[in-house]
Amino acid sequence: MDQIIELLAVIASAIFGVSLARRHNMDFAGVFSMALIVAFGGGSLRDIFLDRHPLFWIEKHHYPVIVFFLSLLTSVVPRFPKSIEKWLIIPDALGLGLFSVAGTDAALESGTSFFVAALMGAITGTFGGVVAEVICNQVPSLFRPAPMYATCAFTGSWFYVLLQQWEPARPVAGPVAIIVIVAFRLMALRFQWILPQMEADE
Amino acid sequence: MDQIIELLAVIASAIFGVSLARRHNMDFAGVFSMALIVAFGGGSLRDIFLDRHPLFWIEKHHYPVIVFFLSLLTSVVPRFPKSIEKWLIIPDALGLGLFSVAGTDAALESGTSFFVAALMGAITGTFGGVVAEVICNQVPSLFRPAPMYATCAFTGSWFYVLLQQWEPARPVAGPVAIIVIVAFRLMALRFQWILPQMEADE
Amino acid sequence: MDQIIELLAVIASAIFGVSLARRHNMDFAGVFSMALIVAFGGGSLRDIFLDRHPLFWIEKHHYPVIVFFLSLLTSVVPRFPKSIEKWLIIPDALGLGLFSVAGTDAALESGTSFFVAALMGAITGTFGGVVAEVICNQVPSLFRPAPMYATCAFTGSWFYVLLQQWEPARPVAGPVAIIVIVAFRLMALRFQWILPQMEADE
Repeated sequence: MDQIIELLAVIASAIFGVSLARRHNMDFAGVFSMALIVAFGGGSLRDIFLDRHPLFWIEKHHYPVIVFFLSLLTSVVPRFPKSIEKWLIIPDALGLGLFSVAGTDAALESGTSFFVAALMGAITGTFGGVVAEVICNQVPSLFRPAPMYATCAFTGSWFYVLLQQWEPARPVAGPVAIIVIVAFRLMALRFQWILPQMEADE
Repeated sequence: MDQIIELLAVIASAIFGVSLARRHNMDFAGVFSMALIVAFGGGSLRDIFLDRHPLFWIEKHHYPVIVFFLSLLTSVVPRFPKSIEKWLIIPDALGLGLFSVAGTDAALESGTSFFVAALMGAITGTFGGVVAEVICNQVPSLFRPAPMYATCAFTGSWFYVLLQQWEPARPVAGPVAIIVIVAFRLMALRFQWILPQMEADE
Repeated sequence: MDQIIELLAVIASAIFGVSLARRHNMDFAGVFSMALIVAFGGGSLRDIFLDRHPLFWIEKHHYPVIVFFLSLLTSVVPRFPKSIEKWLIIPDALGLGLFSVAGTDAALESGTSFFVAALMGAITGTFGGVVAEVICNQVPSLFRPAPMYATCAFTGSWFYVLLQQWEPARPVAGPVAIIVIVAFRLMALRFQWILPQMEADE
């Protein structure tokens, strides 16, 4: 189960990274790097924070190869419609949900507190995208008033932590929490759920 | 002693992060993330560099909870005067002093050289703020001609290293070095102590 | 051999960092920080990814001292010609080649797959420069259409991996791979070898 979640998270995130890079007219080196960063950024930070070695993509060494061929594949596609932008939200939301749950799970396994586990889920889910945005030289949407993103990951991770505690729910906790995060995120985008800004008036 | 220094550093840095985020009109997710980054960034990097696990905020798991409630608290405050900017320098200077000394101390404990220990102090003291500035999409003041910042941390960390070696000074080395860094930083701001620029003339 | 490669990589990268900082009119704190980041960034990430402790610059504690004095030295030079820019490519290419091979070597030693080893080489070779560019608030050239950089590191790292497997070539694998990367990079700059952009047409 964990294996499948992780693999799907890597693929979804890599596709998001590739499309983001494509949209910024990068070359193949940029596309591959961006795919690596989005796919492995959050999980690497989680593994380093929790002192888990070897890092997940070093141990499962087919992951970087998969990301490489995913990046190559898109190079063969001659045209890549700009309207892809609106479809990008799907792999992005999937990556968010999958990695958040994988991160929370790893933290719980390492024996962290519940709060830290939920935080680790949110960090694992959002870090890759944040770094990608910093590289593209824009203020990450996590730090701008924008449809809820980290909030979905943090809430969903808490949801997973609590479900995990409840014995009968355990076998379905993972999939359910992932669905909650993905649905929460897609609805936040659809209905423009934006947290109120903290103003700094005179 | 070390415990109190660390807790104070976390609180001062979180307040600085919150205020910075407020000033950039972020929402609660941004405010909380920014508070976490400024409060835990430097210490996390120190722990990772020195291979200290679990990270200080994972072990002392009440730290992230404190940062969360500090962030929540400010959301209740309806207005936040822009003139707060000039008061921000106080928690920022405190965070700088407290984390620099905590970083130097951890490095010495790990048996690094004096030079590396002082460097680790400066890194621990400044890293959170540098990341926060990169996120806000500006060249960090550490890399622009601006009142001395890293210089205060590095000098003060050296001061702490040397005091530590001198047996009778040891019990007061921490507080004294913190005061030196905070005072140095505040005076640098007050009197515009700026290191000369290295020019690259034609 | 490894020792000499690493020391040369540190010196070449520090010189590149110093010159970059000079070109951006930074003060001494900025110059020293930039030199540290370019010289130790890639190797630190490699050591953290591979769980090698103490980090190479903490263990070889004369490295930061060397970087410090290199940074100091340039402060004495009153004028620093802007035309230096075109000479900067030499230490930059050297740092790229030396660190890529050092990174690949460390990964192979840690028992990673070949693909991961070559990737680690490219990460080690390019990371310092990427961070330096993000700090200077520009989109790193790795992510813009520009003469090949990461591609040289990745290709040359693969070359090193393969040479290493071939017994009789082993003693010269390091120097040969370094020369390949440096030459590849310099030619990419000279002849404007740029990978095709991935366009995102309407």
